[in-house]
Order: sequence, then C-alpha cells, then structure tokens
Amino acid sequence: MSSEDRAIGVIRRVFNARSVALVGASQEPKKYGFMTLNSIIRGGFQGEIYPVNPRGGEILGRKVYPSVGAIPGRPDLVIIIVPVNLVAGVLREAGQMGVPAALIATGGFRESGRLDLESELLCISREYGIRIIGPNIAGINYLPNKLCAMFFPVITTFGPIGIISQSGTITNGLSEWAAYEGIGISAAINLGNQIDLCESDFLDFLSQDDPTRVIAMYLDGVKDGRRFMGSLARATARKPVVILKGGRTHAGQRSASSHTSSMAVDYRVFSAACIQSGAVLAEDLETLFDCSKALAMIRPPKGKRVLTVSTSGGANTAAMDEAEKQDLAVPPLGEEFLSNLKNLNLSPLAALSNPLDLVSLSAEEFRKVFLLADKLDAADLFLINYGDPVEGASEAAEEIRDKVGAGVAVSYFAGGEEEKQGRIKIQAAGIPVFPTPERAIRGLASVCRAATYREGLSKRGGVITMDSQRFSPSGNVDRTFLTEPEGIQYLESYGIPYPPHGMAATRADAVEVAEKIGYPVVLKIVSPEILHKTEIGGVLKGLTSAQEVGAGFDLLISRARSTSSRARIQGVLVCRQLEEGPEAIIGSVEDAVFGPLIMFGLGGIFAEIFNDVAIRVLPIHQSDAEEMIQEIKGYPLLRGARGGAQVKIENLVQMLMSVSRLVEEKREIKELDLNPVHLSERCISALDVRIILGRR
Amino acid sequence: MSSEDRAIGVIRRVFNARSVALVGASQEPKKYGFMTLNSIIRGGFQGEIYPVNPRGGEILGRKVYPSVGAIPGRPDLVIIIVPVNLVAGVLREAGQMGVPAALIATGGFRESGRLDLESELLCISREYGIRIIGPNIAGINYLPNKLCAMFFPVITTFGPIGIISQSGTITNGLSEWAAYEGIGISAAINLGNQIDLCESDFLDFLSQDDPTRVIAMYLDGVKDGRRFMGSLARATARKPVVILKGGRTHAGQRSASSHTSSMAVDYRVFSAACIQSGAVLAEDLETLFDCSKALAMIRPPKGKRVLTVSTSGGANTAAMDEAEKQDLAVPPLGEEFLSNLKNLNLSPLAALSNPLDLVSLSAEEFRKVFLLADKLDAADLFLINYGDPVEGASEAAEEIRDKVGAGVAVSYFAGGEEEKQGRIKIQAAGIPVFPTPERAIRGLASVCRAATYREGLSKRGGVITMDSQRFSPSGNVDRTFLTEPEGIQYLESYGIPYPPHGMAATRADAVEVAEKIGYPVVLKIVSPEILHKTEIGGVLKGLTSAQEVGAGFDLLISRARSTSSRARIQGVLVCRQLEEGPEAIIGSVEDAVFGPLIMFGLGGIFAEIFNDVAIRVLPIHQSDAEEMIQEIKGYPLLRGARGGAQVKIENLVQMLMSVSRLVEEKREIKELDLNPVHLSERCISALDVRIILGRR
Repeated sequence: MSSEDRAIGVIRRVFNARSVALVGASQEPKKYGFMTLNSIIRGGFQGEIYPVNPRGGEILGRKVYPSVGAIPGRPDLVIIIVPVNLVAGVLREAGQMGVPAALIATGGFRESGRLDLESELLCISREYGIRIIGPNIAGINYLPNKLCAMFFPVITTFGPIGIISQSGTITNGLSEWAAYEGIGISAAINLGNQIDLCESDFLDFLSQDDPTRVIAMYLDGVKDGRRFMGSLARATARKPVVILKGGRTHAGQRSASSHTSSMAVDYRVFSAACIQSGAVLAEDLETLFDCSKALAMIRPPKGKRVLTVSTSGGANTAAMDEAEKQDLAVPPLGEEFLSNLKNLNLSPLAALSNPLDLVSLSAEEFRKVFLLADKLDAADLFLINYGDPVEGASEAAEEIRDKVGAGVAVSYFAGGEEEKQGRIKIQAAGIPVFPTPERAIRGLASVCRAATYREGLSKRGGVITMDSQRFSPSGNVDRTFLTEPEGIQYLESYGIPYPPHGMAATRADAVEVAEKIGYPVVLKIVSPEILHKTEIGGVLKGLTSAQEVGAGFDLLISRARSTSSRARIQGVLVCRQLEEGPEAIIGSVEDAVFGPLIMFGLGGIFAEIFNDVAIRVLPIHQSDAEEMIQEIKGYPLLRGARGGAQVKIENLVQMLMSVSRLVEEKREIKELDLNPVHLSERCISALDVRIILGRR
Repeated sequence: MSSEDRAIGVIRRVFNARSVALVGASQEPKKYGFMTLNSIIRGGFQGEIYPVNPRGGEILGRKVYPSVGAIPGRPDLVIIIVPVNLVAGVLREAGQMGVPAALIATGGFRESGRLDLESELLCISREYGIRIIGPNIAGINYLPNKLCAMFFPVITTFGPIGIISQSGTITNGLSEWAAYEGIGISAAINLGNQIDLCESDFLDFLSQDDPTRVIAMYLDGVKDGRRFMGSLARATARKPVVILKGGRTHAGQRSASSHTSSMAVDYRVFSAACIQSGAVLAEDLETLFDCSKALAMIRPPKGKRVLTVSTSGGANTAAMDEAEKQDLAVPPLGEEFLSNLKNLNLSPLAALSNPLDLVSLSAEEFRKVFLLADKLDAADLFLINYGDPVEGASEAAEEIRDKVGAGVAVSYFAGGEEEKQGRIKIQAAGIPVFPTPERAIRGLASVCRAATYREGLSKRGGVITMDSQRFSPSGNVDRTFLTEPEGIQYLESYGIPYPPHGMAATRADAVEVAEKIGYPVVLKIVSPEILHKTEIGGVLKGLTSAQEVGAGFDLLISRARSTSSRARIQGVLVCRQLEEGPEAIIGSVEDAVFGPLIMFGLGGIFAEIFNDVAIRVLPIHQSDAEEMIQEIKGYPLLRGARGGAQVKIENLVQMLMSVSRLVEEKREIKELDLNPVHLSERCISALDVRIILGRR
C-alpha cells in the first residue's frame, strides 16, 4: 500500500470515527474547548464523545475524563485543544493507546517561530504511527458522519461541496454561504500547519469521497508541488476542483507567508500547475464559491456557446459583457430558430437575438424559448436571466433544466420579494442561482473551463508529472555551468537546431572554420569560467572576412585574459550568423515548489517589459506546447502580422518538446536558456545556449 | 437662463410635484397602469393623484377621471401608460393644459424601429413646451417627495444614493440592494429612450440635489459626449459619481444597441472621458453598488495607504491580493507603531504587521489598534477586516469611525449569526460593510480614485471641455486630406519638430535640397491625390548621394504617374533621414460621440498587437499628457529600459500638448497621424504627418 493510500485510509477512518476524545474540553463557553464540544454535540454526532480535562466533572451533560488514558476503549480520533506546551504529552499518550490520528487545534508552532515544537510532534507521530491533522486549525466538519469537530460554525446542511482550506475563516465563510443558500457541504477541512497530513492527502480523500461532487480549495501554497499535481490530476479526473490561491500578488504573498509560512511561489507557475492538472482557478472568495456552486450542479457542457434569455435588456447586456471577458461564445440565433420563435407569440417588442429580450414577465415564455433552443441545439449553456420579478420562475427553471441537454444557470436580479423566495426554491431544485448576470456567467465559464482542462488532461494521457523522487540529487556536479560548445552538444543530441559552427583554438583555426561555414560569422569566447560572455565583450558579431575573423579572435582572447588572468580559455566558437529576424526566448528554471518549468516568449522587450510569456510545469505534452505558443499576446507576430515572419509553428512546437525532454532527462540541468531563438520562415534555431548545473 | 438650467428647473418642479396624473390607470393588478398607481400610493406620495381612464370609476379607492382635460386643476406631472398609438394624443392634451412634463412609460418607439413616433412626440413637446421623460421607461422614484412613479419596486428607504440608469431592471436592482441593506436611495431614475430630457439633464439635477450624496449611473451610451463631460465634471466637483457602462465588449455592445439603440463607443474612449471628468468606473453591477456605498459613506482620503486588521490571516491575505490589484498602498508598520503595539497586550500569536492579524475575536483589540494607528497617522484608509464572529463588532466599528481621521470600511465575512446582525447595525451607523475583504477593498479603492480624479480635475482648472457648439461645421472643406508639405506647415506653426526638408519639383531641385540638408535623405512623392504614399512605393529611404537622389526622384515620379495618370504630382519632398531609433505614434481622430481624441503609443507592434495606447478626449492639460506617457506599459522603454533611449519626457509632453492645441484650433482637421514619431535622447520629431480634413 502506498503512503498516499495509507493516508486516505486513516482520513477515512478518522472522518468516519465512531468515537472521539476532546482533550482540553472546557466549562467556559468562550473557550475553544467548550465551543468544539458544543459543535460536536450540536452537529449531531452519533458516536461516543469523551471530553477530557484533569478537573473531571461534567460539561454540556457529558462525563469528563481526567486523561486520555482514563477513557474506556480507544477513540478513533483525539482532538487536542490544550496549551501548546502540553500538546506533545497528549499526543504521546494517544499514540501509546494506538489512536490512529490526532486533530491538533492548538496554535503557537511554526507561525510563532516554534518549528522545534513541530519536530517534536512529528517524532511522536513516527514513533507511534499516529497521524496528525494540524496543528493550528479550526477543525474539520464531515457531514456524512455528522462530525463537526470545529469551534464554529455548526453547519449541518449536507450538500455536494467539499472544502479544503488553509484558512479557518475561509473554511467557515464558504460553509456558511453554502448553508445559507441551502446548497450545503459534504466536508469542511481546515489545513493549518499541515506538519503531517497535507492538502494532497485530503484532496486524495475527497476525490474518492462519493458525497463530495466538487472540491473547493483555498491554498496559500502547497508543500510538495509534484505530489499536489498528481493528487489534483487524479481528483479532477473524477470531479471538478476549484482553487483560490492566497498570495497571488506581492502584498498577498507577504500576508500569506506570515499567516501560514507558505513558501512563495510565482502565481503564474501555480496557475500553470493547476490548469495542467485539470483544476479551475478563482480570483476571489465570491468567485470560488460561485464556481463551486456551478460545478456542483451543472454537468460538463460539450462546448462554450451560451444563450441568454431575459426580461431585461440591461441584465442581458451585463451578461454579454462578462461572457466576452470570460471567453464564452455567444452565437447568433440560426434561421430555423428565428422562424420557430415567430410562432411562439412572444411580445412584439421582444428582441429576437442572442441575447434574447422577451420584454415580458412571464416564466412561460422562458420555458417555450429554451425548449425550442434545446430542440435546435442552439447552445451548450443556457442562462435563464431573470431581471425583475417573474411569476412561476422556479417551476419554469426546473422544467427547463429537466428537459434540456445544455447546462442551465439562473441569474435572478431585481426580482424583489418574488426573487427572494424563487432563489431558494430554484437552488433547492439543484439549479445554481446567482444574484447578478455577471456572477452567473462566471459560474458558467468555470464549467466550460473545467471541461476543457479535463479534456486536455485526458488528451495528455492523464497525469504527466515527474515522480517527485526523480528530483533528488542525481550525483555530484562539480561545475556550475556548461560552456557553449558543451551546451550545443546537448541541443544536438535532442535535435534542437543551432547554426553551423566550429571551435577554434588558434587564430588560424578560427579563419579556417569561418571559411568553411561561410560569412558573416559570430565569434564567442569559450571558457569554463566565463558565463556572461556579452558582459565582458566576449561576443563579436557581423564578421565578414578572414581578416576580420583573425583580428576578432585576437581581440576576444586578449579581452578574456584581461578580465580574468586565471580563466582557462578554451578558444573561440565560430558560428554562422543568421539574417536579422524576430527572436524568441525558451527557458527552463527549477521552481522550489514545482520543480522544472518551461517558459516561452518573444524576444527581450516582449518578455521583460510586457511580461508576455507562457509557463508550464515540465514535462509538457505536444498540446501544451501548442497552447503555450498560442497564448502569448504576441502570437499574431508569428503568424505574419505587421510584416512579421510566417513562422513554422510545428517546428517551434518540436523545439519546445525537445527542450522538455532534454531537461527531463538530463538531471544535472538546473537552468537552461535559449536566448535568443532565431525565428524566420525558413528556419528556427537557437542562437545561444546557457546551461546552469545543479543538484536536483 | 441656459437650456441646462431650464431642464434642471423642470426636473426639480416635476420631481417635487404636488399633483400627478396617471393616464392609463387600470383596474387589472398585472397591468403597469395599476402597478404604477399602486406604487405611487404605497410610496406615500402626499400630493394629489389623478388616475385617468375613459372608463372612469375608481381604482385603489381613487376617483378615476375620463381624460386629462377632466382633471380639476393642472397637474405638475402627467404619467402616460397608454398604448403607443395613443401617446401623442395624451401628450398634446397635457401640453395644451400647460403641464410642465410628461413621463412616458409606454414602449414601442425607436426600440421597435418607430423613430417617426418619437419625432411626433418631440414636435408636440416643442409646440407646447412640455418636457418628456422617456419614453420606454419603468419610471422614476424621488424619495424626498415620496414620489414612486414606477411599476415596481416600491422603495421607501431614504438614503444617500441617487441612481440614473438606462436599464429599468438595473434601476430596480440597485434600489432593492440599497433598501435591503438599510442604506437607501435619494432617487432612482430610469432613462429609457431619452428623446428630450437625457442623462446629462438628470445628472445636472442630482448634482444640485442635496439629499443625493453619491450618483450611481448605468449607461449603455450617451447622447452628446461633450455635454455629458461638462455635466459630469460639474457633478464630480460636488459629489462622487460612479458609472457602469453597458456594452464594454463587442458582445455587450451588440446587446446594448438592440436594447437602447445606443451609439457604439469604444470603451477606452468612454473611460477616458469619464475619468477626465472626475468619475469613477465600475466593471460590474456588484462593484457599481459597492463603490456607490463606499463613496456615499467615506470622506475623500488624503492618500491611498490602507491598514487592514483582522482576526483572520485568510481574510487579510484576500484583502492584500485585492489591494495590490487595485493599486492601493500597503505601508509596513513604523517602528513607533510597533513599539506602541507591544504595550497593547495583544495575543502573543498576533502577527504585528500590515496586514495585522490579531488572532483574537475581541472587538476591543480592533478598537485599540485602530485608535493607535490614527494617532500615528499610519494610513489613510482603515479596513476593519472582521473574519469569524466578533462580539461588539458594531460598537467598535462605530467608535473607530467616529474617532479617526482615516476613511473606514468594514468587511464582515464568516461571522455567522453575529455577522448578520452586526452587518445591519454597522451600516445603519453609516459605515459601509462588505461581505468579503475583496469587495471592501474595491470600495476603498474607488474612494481613492474619486479623490485622485477630482484633484486632477481641479488641477486642470475645472472642466476643460470644448463647447459642443464648436463642433459645428467650420466652413466648406473641398479637399479630403492635406499633402505632407501642407501638414508640415501646420506642425511648424505649432512648434512640432520635423526633420530638415525641402520640396523639389525637378530632379535638379531634389539633388540641390539633399546636398543642402545633408545625407542620408528620404524622398516622398507629393500629390493631392495620393494619401497612402507607401502603398504605391511613393517613399524611398536611405539615399546617400546625389546620384541616388536623382535616380530616386525619377523613380517616384514615374511610379506616381503609372499609378494614376490623372494624379496632379506636385513634386517630391526631400527630408533628412534621422538615425534608427525607437518610434512612437501620436494621433487624433474624431469620435462620433465625444469629438476629437488624442492617442499616444509606442511604434506599430506595441500599439497594434499589444494594444498599448493611451487615449484622452481633447483638449488635454499638461497633467493629462504626462499621465498618458506614463500609463502605457512600454513606458520603461522611454526611460532607458533594455538599452532604450532616455527620451526627454518633457519634450514628448510638449508635443502632445501642441497636437492638442493644433487639433483644437484648426477646426478643419478630422484626423491627424504622426506615425512614426522619432524618439531619441537628442531629439523628438515627427517623421510623417497625415491630416484628413472634414467638417466638424
């Protein structure tokens, strides 16, 4: 059994506990030890509850045990809410009894600079095989077992959303919203410091948990990026996952680090990793909730065509503006649709287009229009865009949802009292209702994205992630970088083009090479001590004759000598100079959390000033390479816009794939830079290669 | 009295009506004629109400009059809800009685292709001096007079937000939200087809209406851009205005056009016009409401430093991510602040930074921290970022707001039952409360923006908008464009640099000019029939000798002749060719709604592919020119980034200002293009000028 499977097994057993001990139970209603006991009881837990407090007595009508050891029998879960210095003792006692896991609510560990205390807990965990949830958490709530082991809130509205969150407050807020709207949750898991069981373990668990139909995550960071990608990809193959990352900006990252000590990760990298693993990203709390709701209730659509019907032109316009922003398609109504619409006896003022404005407050007309749209396969997603009070809104929505093949969402805006009741009824019928057209469209767009990413994942043959084991050191590396000729050898063995070239140890060699490969040529100094050749004037371009090459050779050697008298100079690399043309950058760096990445962008200014780069976690599939090229804003320049070259995209795709394989297989590569890469209609070729070595 | 003042006078009289007639009053509860009467009564209108219907009788206990003429006395307002073909008759009758204005709810005019019916109404309006609100509207609600003249909803919660909206549904939705939250509205005005009184008239009215402290607008477009800018600038000088534009995207614009027949306007132009006039823009309905709320309750801050204090690390991180996105500043806590904080006896687990995480659920600690922050002037804006239930939350928020100089907003998230009550109490005390930290930050950011834009407006010496009269035709223009030498004369008379040059009618002339100005030179064909010189090969670059210039002259002349045998060829322009360098574009076009604009961007690819351009409505102030240059993404390239030139920004500012003056004063210019503009450390110079003529 893998360690992942073992973790799932423990979580399953603990979440389905038949008995729980609460160490640190308190008489004082404002203490967490009281609140948590109260939550477990009010949550309706059906198993045994053992409050533990040395003072004994009774709390909330339950007998209090003086110690864990005094409990009759072995609880399935021990919840620890005692002062930080007493936690280790309690954990040890529980471990000695053979309790499978402890939920440690107490804070004051890593977040207060006490990593030592966490190490102690981990030692006890290993010694006795007792797994740890936390420390520093609000708790967990698992509704299939009515186990609400958290301070507050006591959410008992059972539903499809499973929440995993590094923030207790966000765990609670999402749970409350789900309960207020009558949707409900399957689980709410606060992660805290995750010294043992981590976000990936709980993700593994919820992905196999049938009551959970969608997983909503709030993460400040992840512990092991590759492990996370694997768990995420397995989860999204079964059910949608929506993620809000805290710390997407510098200011946010500073806050997240102080809150959960999460390691900083570039949000572009985090996003790429999530999308490659099939997850959908949200950009704020409300959108995280909206997307979860939509994904819980709407089946994956075939495409991204949306039809919106409203009683309100304003609501339709709001939907359209957001639809375009979210990259949904808004197809015009076909001729057959239009001619059939004319038979429906709609108001003569109705605007018969997509969006369709009924100019009527009758739910019956919505029903007729959407059933017709379904018959004619007019769209993949239907937005019932109620603006103003609509009588019979809930019945019509339900009938539409039941009878059509498209995904259905409702926006109910400006509907007064009619809306307040309709909203609850419609959502209770399993149709997501949003308070504005824009939020509805965001929900629908997330449903499309989830379907697309999931399809991408299966196109890539499931998870293509490197085993995290492969990132361990691959042997001693005694140099920090490769010289260019060494780098070129790597490129050549992976079929990555480089212009004709040759090494020259002497002035005569240089001229000979140049005469052989043809002018103009570029000369580059080669030394295992000189990484930044340009900075010391170690590159000469545009040499067009034997004389120039000879003089250039001498100049480079003398420059190199004067820069560093100890530099071992191996000679000069003579390369054929290609014509001027557009340039790209292809690079790979190693991210501390996600491991090797690949980056693609157009030449300098575009990448640096406009930040126009595409990033993926390595290795990549051909479809990733294609997407990377298409997703940069400068893509039209590769397709001949503004007199640019018509670059052979398939060759660029091949180059990205080759770099991916090269970095994947040559474990000593820590950083690789092909900058620039020459692009023209005739050829694509690296013009410079820099490879930094390092253990990984 | 100006026509604007007359319009305000009529609106004031009508909104404060002491008597209203409702023509089309109905017995049937589902008819608008019934609903509107019901609204007026339920809204609490204290004046006389005269329902009119030929059938007579009684509706809702009110005597019904058979016709407008039968009403005893002259009503201040006639509301018309009769079939479209009867509207003109009723309007005429009301006009004949001397009624100052009619509110025409009936639809079926322009939106159904019946512009003719609108013209008829306008004729009647002019004949009798009766002003028209509508047609095709849901109505208006003016709470100071308890006049709820709309189908629904009956909003009676009086508060600071004045709503002007082209969409009835959005008028209603915003009103409902304001009422549900206990904030209330001063006015809700649905604009409809605006054949007479328009958005600018109502804006003028609300800007002088004391109960209205903030104006929230939803607009699909505006009738007269310059008039609107003037009204907007006068309004924002008195109170904040927030605008959501429907149809910001292509899809949205299509929907808006079909809904309100609004003329398409580039959203970048619309935004520039609003910001130049001091208004804040919202990007969706929820943000429109959130910003209105914040602006109604928070005084303008001195700066954009925000301090957020929470019980929740997650809520703080969410606030930080949004703060950076919204360009708020998050200053670290100063040393004095930190040392004083240590005396406050906060939890040892508290994170003493900005954001500050109290790790406590006591409102008292929020109070202590914010009062300390106020004493030390730690920030301009305070976010009381309640996450989880906080006892005494409302009292603490109120005390903080009363005692501090900074603007205060509350986010209350995940606070359970405590929150539901606290939220209402806090908002009732005049402090804006938002359901998530992100929405609170958006609200605070709008408060900063409003202050900045308003300051910008006053820096520009108030409204600098051209009188719309000045856009009438300025005389006959019999040509469609200027030749380049003519264009250069315009540039020279406004001090806009152009390289040394001279006209040549003969080959010998060309050589003589070239010898005089120095090589290399550029030759350009000059003909009043050839606008696109490059397309016919009419430009030759890089000529370096008398021979080349001579041959070039002949080549251009023969190319021009072969292109068009009838083209009058005036000769060849010989210009000194400047060294290669970065290039910019400065242009001016005439927008159908807002009149002349100015555009600035870097050379071709940046403007065309990356859409990196700054746009303003002309004329501009020096501060606008400075902002335009700084707001493009490529700005670092002008500051020497990546080896770019250190361009003299002040010279570029001067050039933008000169172009502004040129286009403002030379009324025959319809379109002007300086493309490219040469930028280097030594000089900034137009290299090509194209001027299209036209009436305006």
